[in-house]
Amino acid sequence: MRSMANLKLDDVPTQWYNIVPDLPEPLPPPKDPEKGPSRIQNLPNLMIGECLNQEFSKERWIDIPGGVMDLYLKAGRPRPLFRATNLEKRLDTPARMYYKSEFFSPTGSHKVNTALAQCWYAKRQGFERVTTETGAGQWGTALSYAAAITGLKCTVFWVRSVYNWKKDRLSLMKLMGADVHASPSPVTEFGKKLYDKNPEHDGSLGIAISEGLEDSGRDPKATYCLGSVLNHVLMHQTIIGLETQKQFEIFDDYPDIVISCIGGGSNFGGFALPFLGDALKKGKKIKFIAAQSQVAANLQGKYEYDFADYAEITPMLKMYTLGHQADMKPIKGDGLRYHGSSPILSLLRHKGFIDTIAYPADEKHVFETAKIFIETEGWLPAPESAYSVCCAIEEALKCRESGEKKVIAFNISGHGFLDMPGYRAVLGLG
Amino acid sequence: MRSMANLKLDDVPTQWYNIVPDLPEPLPPPKDPEKGPSRIQNLPNLMIGECLNQEFSKERWIDIPGGVMDLYLKAGRPRPLFRATNLEKRLDTPARMYYKSEFFSPTGSHKVNTALAQCWYAKRQGFERVTTETGAGQWGTALSYAAAITGLKCTVFWVRSVYNWKKDRLSLMKLMGADVHASPSPVTEFGKKLYDKNPEHDGSLGIAISEGLEDSGRDPKATYCLGSVLNHVLMHQTIIGLETQKQFEIFDDYPDIVISCIGGGSNFGGFALPFLGDALKKGKKIKFIAAQSQVAANLQGKYEYDFADYAEITPMLKMYTLGHQADMKPIKGDGLRYHGSSPILSLLRHKGFIDTIAYPADEKHVFETAKIFIETEGWLPAPESAYSVCCAIEEALKCRESGEKKVIAFNISGHGFLDMPGYRAVLGLG
Repeated sequence: MRSMANLKLDDVPTQWYNIVPDLPEPLPPPKDPEKGPSRIQNLPNLMIGECLNQEFSKERWIDIPGGVMDLYLKAGRPRPLFRATNLEKRLDTPARMYYKSEFFSPTGSHKVNTALAQCWYAKRQGFERVTTETGAGQWGTALSYAAAITGLKCTVFWVRSVYNWKKDRLSLMKLMGADVHASPSPVTEFGKKLYDKNPEHDGSLGIAISEGLEDSGRDPKATYCLGSVLNHVLMHQTIIGLETQKQFEIFDDYPDIVISCIGGGSNFGGFALPFLGDALKKGKKIKFIAAQSQVAANLQGKYEYDFADYAEITPMLKMYTLGHQADMKPIKGDGLRYHGSSPILSLLRHKGFIDTIAYPADEKHVFETAKIFIETEGWLPAPESAYSVCCAIEEALKCRESGEKKVIAFNISGHGFLDMPGYRAVLGLG
Repeated sequence: MRSMANLKLDDVPTQWYNIVPDLPEPLPPPKDPEKGPSRIQNLPNLMIGECLNQEFSKERWIDIPGGVMDLYLKAGRPRPLFRATNLEKRLDTPARMYYKSEFFSPTGSHKVNTALAQCWYAKRQGFERVTTETGAGQWGTALSYAAAITGLKCTVFWVRSVYNWKKDRLSLMKLMGADVHASPSPVTEFGKKLYDKNPEHDGSLGIAISEGLEDSGRDPKATYCLGSVLNHVLMHQTIIGLETQKQFEIFDDYPDIVISCIGGGSNFGGFALPFLGDALKKGKKIKFIAAQSQVAANLQGKYEYDFADYAEITPMLKMYTLGHQADMKPIKGDGLRYHGSSPILSLLRHKGFIDTIAYPADEKHVFETAKIFIETEGWLPAPESAYSVCCAIEEALKCRESGEKKVIAFNISGHGFLDMPGYRAVLGLG
C-alpha cells in the first residue's frame, strides 16, 4: 500500500463548498450594536465586493474563477494526503492515521488559499493595496505573497508579542515587498492610543484587525482582507477538505475522526466543513475535534453576539467568544490566540457537531508530542499544527487501548521552518 | 495553458540513471596516492556496501528498491515542474522558463533523495549509526531526517562558519534526534588538532568530511554517508531530472538551456545528467550552465587527481579542483563552497559539455536577482538555489535582447526558510 495519494490536475475541485444552506438551522446574521453608526452598512467600504457577496451567499457550490485556479496551481495545489505509516508503528496503534499537507505552500501554510482568492478579486475590482492583521504571521505572509503575485501593495499589522520573536517571517514579508507594522502601532489613530500608553504593548488579533480596518478605511484605493472567521474565508479554504475527500477515495478509506487546530476557524473549517457536509447531508457518523489552547479556548466561551475586533469597528457576530477585549497570554502557537470562533463553526458546535479539547499554556505536551511526529513522519509542523498532531496522537493512543481500528484524519495546516525559535523555547533544544 | 505539471504516482521513475556507460570516454577511476596506506582498499570499511557497488557500476539503469520508492513518496515525490509565467512577464522575455521544485522536501532540499537511499541501504546492512559532514546544512538536515525515518542514529560534523549562523537548522537537526558538532571539533583526533590551535576555526567541507570519516571508521556499527561528489550520490539524484523530463513531455516542450548551481555536484548532476544523457545518446543540442561562486569556482580550477577531503583519508579523484586544502571565504550560499567537483561532471566539463559562470563573493547581485523571482513566483529559494535563479534570469534577459524563444530549465534545489539570516545579511532587510 502506498503511503501517499494525490490528485491529477484534472481532478482538482473547481468549486468551493458553502455549507450555509446545509446547516441544521439558519445561520444567525451579523448585526449592529444598539448604539453608534451602522457597521453593516459600512461593510462595502471595508471589504472586497465579491467577498461580501460570498459572505451572504446561500449557494451550496461556488465556482472557483479560472484565474484563481491558475494561482492555486502556481501555489502547488493539489497537496498530497499522507498515510502516517511510520507514526502508526511507533504508536503501536490499530488506528489508520492520515494527514493533509497544507505545508506545501509558498509561505508555509493553508492561508494562501484565501489570500490568493481575495487578492485576485481585489485586483479585478481595481484596488491597488490590501491591508490586514496577522497573529502567528502565517496570514500576513500569505497575504504579502498573494499581493506580490497579483501586483498589489500590502500593509500588515502584526501582533507585537509575535512580531518580536519571528524575525525570519518578518524578513520574508519584506522580501515580498510588504509594509509591516508591530501592532498596536503609531500609524493608526486607534493603535496610537494604545501605543502611546505602552510602546511594548503585546497586542492582540482583535487590536490588529482594528488597525487594518482603520488603515484601509481612510484610503479609497485600499481594501481590507481578513484571514479567518468569516464565511467566505472558510469557504475558500474548503479546497483543503474537498481535495482530501477525493484523496480518501484513492485510499478507499473514510475518516471516523476529523481533527484540526482552531483559532478563528479558517483551518479547521477548510478541512472539516466538507466532512461536516457529509455528516449533515449523508448522515455520516464522524467525530470532529477542534484542538485549542487554554489561553484562547474560545469554543468553551459564551455563544453570543460579539465584535470581531477590539475597537468595535466590525459588526457583531453570533459566535463562541471570550469577549472581544479579553486578555490572552502569548503562546508559541499564536495563530490559535483569538477571542472568537467563526459563526458557522460556532453554530455547529452549539448544535453538538464539534468536540473540543484545550491544551495547557506551557505547550510542553503539545510540542513533545509533535516531536514524535517529526521523528517518524519527518515533516515539521507549525506550532499551531502541532496542536492537531497532538490531538491525533492522543486519539490513536485511545485506539491502542480500545483496540478500535478507527480512521483518523488531521490537517498539518503549516510548516514550522519560520517558527523554530518557538520549538527551541518550549523544548529547550540546544 | 497550465503553469504547473506533475506526474501520476504510477509514472514516477522507478530506476535511477547511471551516465557512466554513456560518457564520451571512460571515467578515470579513483586512485591511491603514491605514499601511505591504500585508501581504495579501505573503502569497504567506510562506505555502505551497496553504495560502493553502485559507485563502480557500469549498468545504465539501476532499479530503485521498493522500500526506497516508498520513502520517496513519503518525502513528497513526485515534485512539480512549474512554468515561470509571472517571471517571464516581469522580465518581458520571449524565453519560456521552467523550474523544478525540489524545495517540496521535508528538510527543504533535494538532499533527501540520496539520504533516504543511503540510510535504507545502511539499515539493511545492519548499521546502527550514520556519520557525515555538512556545509550549508541542507545535507546534514537531510541525513538527520532520513536516519530518523529509517531508525538509525546520526552524527553530523558541520562547517563552523555556517553552524554559527544557522541556529534554526541546528534546532531542526536536533529535533530529529541527530548529534551535531561544529567542525573542526574536539571529538575527532584530526578535528582536535585544528580546534586546539583555533577553537573558532571557520572549518571547511573538506575538514568536516575528514572528521565524519574518522568518526565512522572507529565504530564498526557506524558507516559514513557522503552528500555529493560521488557517482552513486549523483545517480540517486537523477530522480530529479528523470521526473523533469516526463513533466516536460506533459508541457510538450524541451529545454534548450539547463541550469543549476554547483558545489560538489549532487544538485547539478541530479537535474542535468538525464538531459546530458539525451545530449550524448540522442544528439540533443542543449546548453548546460553550472552556476558557482567566485570563492569556490572549482570548475575553473585544474583537472587533476586530488583528495576529496582535507586530511587525505579518501582516495584521489580525477576532478576539477582548487586544491583540497584551499582556503575559501565563507559565503551565504555555503553549499557551493567545496574545493572539487564530481568526477563525472568534471569529465563532461573537460569534454566541453558544461559551461560555467561564477558570481562575486558579496552575493548582492545573486540575492537581488533572486528577489525578483520571489516577488513574481512566490517561492523562496535557498541561498544556493538563488545562484540558479540568477543565472536563469540572466539567460532570459539575453533572449529579450536577441528575441530568441529559448526554453530555459532550472532547478530550485531547496528553500530558504531556514536561511533567512543570510538574506538579511546580504539584502539588509529590516
